[in-house]
Amino acid sequence: MNANILYFQSGGPTSVINASFLGLVEEYRRQNIQGHVYVSRFGIDGLLQGKLEEIDIHNPPDILFRPGAYFGSARLRLDPDPQSDQALNVIKTLQDYAIDYVFPNGGNDSMDTAAKLSAYALFHHLPLRVVGIPKTIDNDLYGCDHTPGFGTAAKFVANATLSVAMDDATYKQGRVNIIETMGRDSGFLAASSILASLKGYAPDYIYVPEVPFVLQEFLDKCAKTYKEKGRCLVVVSEGIRDKNGELIATSSSREDVFGHRQVGGVSSFLASLVEKHGIKTRAIELSVLNRASCFLPCLRDIEEAKGAAAFALNSSIHGQSGCMVCILREERDEYAVRYQTRDIRDIANRVVYLPKHYINASGDNIDARYIAYCLPLIQGNATSLDENGLI
Amino acid sequence: MNANILYFQSGGPTSVINASFLGLVEEYRRQNIQGHVYVSRFGIDGLLQGKLEEIDIHNPPDILFRPGAYFGSARLRLDPDPQSDQALNVIKTLQDYAIDYVFPNGGNDSMDTAAKLSAYALFHHLPLRVVGIPKTIDNDLYGCDHTPGFGTAAKFVANATLSVAMDDATYKQGRVNIIETMGRDSGFLAASSILASLKGYAPDYIYVPEVPFVLQEFLDKCAKTYKEKGRCLVVVSEGIRDKNGELIATSSSREDVFGHRQVGGVSSFLASLVEKHGIKTRAIELSVLNRASCFLPCLRDIEEAKGAAAFALNSSIHGQSGCMVCILREERDEYAVRYQTRDIRDIANRVVYLPKHYINASGDNIDARYIAYCLPLIQGNATSLDENGLI
Repeated sequence: MNANILYFQSGGPTSVINASFLGLVEEYRRQNIQGHVYVSRFGIDGLLQGKLEEIDIHNPPDILFRPGAYFGSARLRLDPDPQSDQALNVIKTLQDYAIDYVFPNGGNDSMDTAAKLSAYALFHHLPLRVVGIPKTIDNDLYGCDHTPGFGTAAKFVANATLSVAMDDATYKQGRVNIIETMGRDSGFLAASSILASLKGYAPDYIYVPEVPFVLQEFLDKCAKTYKEKGRCLVVVSEGIRDKNGELIATSSSREDVFGHRQVGGVSSFLASLVEKHGIKTRAIELSVLNRASCFLPCLRDIEEAKGAAAFALNSSIHGQSGCMVCILREERDEYAVRYQTRDIRDIANRVVYLPKHYINASGDNIDARYIAYCLPLIQGNATSLDENGLI
Repeated sequence: MNANILYFQSGGPTSVINASFLGLVEEYRRQNIQGHVYVSRFGIDGLLQGKLEEIDIHNPPDILFRPGAYFGSARLRLDPDPQSDQALNVIKTLQDYAIDYVFPNGGNDSMDTAAKLSAYALFHHLPLRVVGIPKTIDNDLYGCDHTPGFGTAAKFVANATLSVAMDDATYKQGRVNIIETMGRDSGFLAASSILASLKGYAPDYIYVPEVPFVLQEFLDKCAKTYKEKGRCLVVVSEGIRDKNGELIATSSSREDVFGHRQVGGVSSFLASLVEKHGIKTRAIELSVLNRASCFLPCLRDIEEAKGAAAFALNSSIHGQSGCMVCILREERDEYAVRYQTRDIRDIANRVVYLPKHYINASGDNIDARYIAYCLPLIQGNATSLDENGLI
């Protein structure tokens, strides 16, 4: 068969977003499709600028383990008007390059972009198929058991927690260690730190955005645990909020184009308060390493990132459009997944939260049931480094 | 032969300090020595408390990749008086357990402890041999080409720098990223970020404690580079100081409006100043993960950590005492090391700085010659994780 396809990356990077691209190219080759594979650099920027880049499918870039979105990404909200300048530019580019299928690789905000591309094409009677490839470290895409990128990020959280805990165990008198994970709205990443309990280093407290954070209670608990154990291990999501939904720490009042406030720095803020009580404290903000580390590849995550992309290509071949690929978990003893598509409009701009039954009764830790959910997702070790020891 | 030996860990942990212990035990077995292997928990604490712990040398703990000092450490300065209570307690414990050789595993402060143990034994006519096993991520031990623990920490710095840079490359308009490494006095760790240049991501600026830091110059350079390139990659050592030797990170200006002392390090402080100029900025403090990560094992570092410990045992067998094992680099094309001992008093409480020829003329970056020094030290990849994906 013949098909020209376009791939672009959108939103924040994950450690496996580039694996999805490779999965798409592999499937294109495997199906022996005749045509061209294009990418739009910096998300839809290339589409808006009228310039796509062709990929040599027999010699794709060596980016399986590469952190960051290799082709560049953007956070740009498309004009909903199909007759806007943006829409006309996009349509012209798609026509110039005779694109048949488009594969936006992104999260919930990016599926808004995908939905608009679909709408533009429909309005302009362009026989275009748009199938989203999922990605987000936050694991908050509607309709998915989990998302590509989450497993690697969760693996990093679990092992960073262990590293901090094992380091602290060096001294008879420890510290209050406050580890800050990513997770603007959903607590999945912070919750993953509970995996450290499998090695005997359960966090004393895990705070997620789903539970209103009460500062004084936190300070009292820290002081009590520190007094009893000589140390205290706390994991907080960057997105924890008070009962009014206000972020506990906002580094600035800046908002991005989707109206999201830039977050980060809550661990330093909390540590400064704990330290006022004369307790040795350390804030460890995993920061951008949480989403873009090359440290602990997760082969299962890579495989599923590729699998979702391959499924997207096959779905478009079978006539689907206006949908995103979701990963679902099979109901059986041994871990297995299946892929299915879902209407983009169900997913766009919608957030999934950590289910309540994974949060303990007092709202300050994670239930052990979460381990059964999360542990299979971090499986499969590899080294991402070259012979020189560099990514 | 017969010998009872005592091993203890001292000072801050490294990622390979536990490998040194395993190297000591392996050599003890290899030499078929008859006797007991003891450890003192929490550094010299066990010695002071009169309680040592015997290790089953045929079944040592599985700690090859384990971060933190597994047996516990302490930062305690021994009383120099050989008739002090401390000295008498220590001597009694050594006699109770009939210890022949002692192996303190530590850095420059710990060699002060080792020197005092030697002096106690001499004063009390105890035929004890004390041989130090080196460790420190800071790479600042006198008489050594490099130290066990440095290679792994440098590998982490180099790859964290690459991860941050690759993440930033995702967006057309990047940030000022300020990565903060450990390194209180010496700039070796921050300097290791220059290895990222081998992959095309050279830091724009690298600041080390050896060069007086001028805040306004830094801010001007950041703004200029950000304007020109749309991004700026900065690596700073936690220990950078002004021309008076005052740490930048403990400046009194680092109190917020509530009078809270900021807990975050110098990177947060610098980022807050850069952000005032309306530039998107992120501080990434590697923090304790710099010394205690389980993420990127370095087989060469592990091998040398073990090798130094084995050499320590052999040195004591050959009658040496009051010395520490140093790693020296052979003068030949292919990387090779040899071990030799050096008087503890040369090493104790003494710091080695990053040689001037590794710093560029303007004092804001690292000379490419440092790559030839550092790259061999990060060689040898492995995964430290179990079948579940956890350390």
